[in-house]
Amino acid sequence: MGAKCSLPQSFAPYRNAVRAELENTIDSSLPSLRNLLRYHMGWQDEHGNPCGRESGKFIRSTLCILSCQAVGGDTSRVMSAAAAVELVHNFSLIHDDIEDGSHERHHRPTVWKLWGESQAINAGDAMFTLAYSTLLKLSEKGIADEKIVSSIEMLSRACLELCDGQYLDVDYENRLDITVKDYLDMAAKKTAALFGVSTSLGAYLGSEGSELVNFFRLFGRQLGIAYQICDDILGIWGTVERVGKSAGDISQRKKTLPVVYGLQNSEGTARERLEGLYSQKPIGDKGVSEVMKILNQLGARDYAEDLAEQYYQGALAQLEATGLGASRQDPLKETACFILKRDF
Amino acid sequence: MGAKCSLPQSFAPYRNAVRAELENTIDSSLPSLRNLLRYHMGWQDEHGNPCGRESGKFIRSTLCILSCQAVGGDTSRVMSAAAAVELVHNFSLIHDDIEDGSHERHHRPTVWKLWGESQAINAGDAMFTLAYSTLLKLSEKGIADEKIVSSIEMLSRACLELCDGQYLDVDYENRLDITVKDYLDMAAKKTAALFGVSTSLGAYLGSEGSELVNFFRLFGRQLGIAYQICDDILGIWGTVERVGKSAGDISQRKKTLPVVYGLQNSEGTARERLEGLYSQKPIGDKGVSEVMKILNQLGARDYAEDLAEQYYQGALAQLEATGLGASRQDPLKETACFILKRDF
Repeated sequence: MGAKCSLPQSFAPYRNAVRAELENTIDSSLPSLRNLLRYHMGWQDEHGNPCGRESGKFIRSTLCILSCQAVGGDTSRVMSAAAAVELVHNFSLIHDDIEDGSHERHHRPTVWKLWGESQAINAGDAMFTLAYSTLLKLSEKGIADEKIVSSIEMLSRACLELCDGQYLDVDYENRLDITVKDYLDMAAKKTAALFGVSTSLGAYLGSEGSELVNFFRLFGRQLGIAYQICDDILGIWGTVERVGKSAGDISQRKKTLPVVYGLQNSEGTARERLEGLYSQKPIGDKGVSEVMKILNQLGARDYAEDLAEQYYQGALAQLEATGLGASRQDPLKETACFILKRDF
Repeated sequence: MGAKCSLPQSFAPYRNAVRAELENTIDSSLPSLRNLLRYHMGWQDEHGNPCGRESGKFIRSTLCILSCQAVGGDTSRVMSAAAAVELVHNFSLIHDDIEDGSHERHHRPTVWKLWGESQAINAGDAMFTLAYSTLLKLSEKGIADEKIVSSIEMLSRACLELCDGQYLDVDYENRLDITVKDYLDMAAKKTAALFGVSTSLGAYLGSEGSELVNFFRLFGRQLGIAYQICDDILGIWGTVERVGKSAGDISQRKKTLPVVYGLQNSEGTARERLEGLYSQKPIGDKGVSEVMKILNQLGARDYAEDLAEQYYQGALAQLEATGLGASRQDPLKETACFILKRDF
């Protein structure tokens, strides 16, 4: 997929604005849960002491803000939408870490690992609620109520897809009959829906008309699937150091794209071995090596990289279809490039 | 607290309307998770076969609809608000059952018990999202966007309190220094906030002016605390048959009002024993009997019943303060009476 790209320079000033919006939202409520949420965001350690960590990559808020900018909108007016999609993403991470039994995220213990599953469930629920509270702040920027209602509707629809996608992700763990089509359905819901609402909210709130919103939505959705596939590739061939979490997708029997491809396209002994290993719970170190060997023989990584490239190109095509000038499109293209090519 | 009361006749027709709204909301989305949500609501068994169970008491939706009626509003216009508060309540139950490790609810296995914790987390998240989706349907009934935005704000604020209250509930389990004041703070958040938004949404959406809304909010909140205290009493002195869940509040070391009162007001050996037992995890059968004996000696049940009565009277005073005629207030009074006096 070509040379590495970096995050557009144009995003640097927005990053602080998003963080300020997030901090303001989290700190203005929830006296008890605030500490857990601030910890999860990377702003403090478990004792409440500030720590100079980054709060993730802010991919979704970047996409929201740059989509607003692309349609010529006033980016200062969409900060609360940018914060909202980031909060939904983070609520989902807190719950996902419980579901996956993940002990670490970004080289730190997960919320449930420190405070227990119950409080992590509560913290995620609170983060989820804050996404809606934040979105309501659009009215402070003079956004009309009609647009706020539509924005909440767009966010809710994406959240429903996200929950359904999370369900499928867990459900697939115990199944051997998952096809690439099933996988793409899950990725569309689990990941692409939130990407799609990030870009479409930015375009919708940044413009008066709505004829371009659907292109932005589809740009976000296609990019989201490409991103999920890249994440799957990293989850198998990436290393702990680079991703900040143990590459345990195989040991957890996650039905990531390379594995789904492998199960669908293997024959004879290879298939028997894959099916045998994926019937265990969890897969041990020796099994993981064996799975990787089979996937390599089948060319599963090439297949996944090609498919990610197709979705990436599909995303760019949606952006082109907006008919906006190159200078309008470029920051989003650079972001897409940065997101997808980060480590391979 | 006087003679038993029954649910006002006037509510019977609304019950079906709320259920229809809920079914419509749950069925119109979420292909994968729908079964779990329908099961939780009591509409089907775990295999998807219909079962003729009731879907809980619909207390919160009743309060919403009757508050709308009390201000002379068109109740058909608030059905989606009534459904929304019911969905928030049920999302919270699904997650609460995981947090408490409860195996049964209404004499049936809980969602996590059947589908596992991960899928129950996802099901709760989905139910939570549906609450917002449902509230947006107010626009189909001609409610202005401005009012919808305010309604979402009211609901979000209540949900934040709910999450914070759930946090405190779990946090208190491991602490011996909880006071009645701490308890009331937790009950206000965990239970009363949702009661308060149920009544205030009904009044707000049912009327043009807003001068009465705060009375309804306070009526709901005070009633909610009274309800929580009654639930606490049932959780210790109620029986499995009547409540539909095992009366395990003591064995789980829940800091319910009678226990908090007991810890605050016991001395000497009784206090040592209580503190000793509440430092164990969980409390065994013999310990439960001992706790109950100490609470009985301290008059903890009388204390709790008196406090519930005070909040009940406080709730009625708020209703009186609306200045509405008796025929407007009566259905809400009957509902309050029904809720609080159900089993003791």
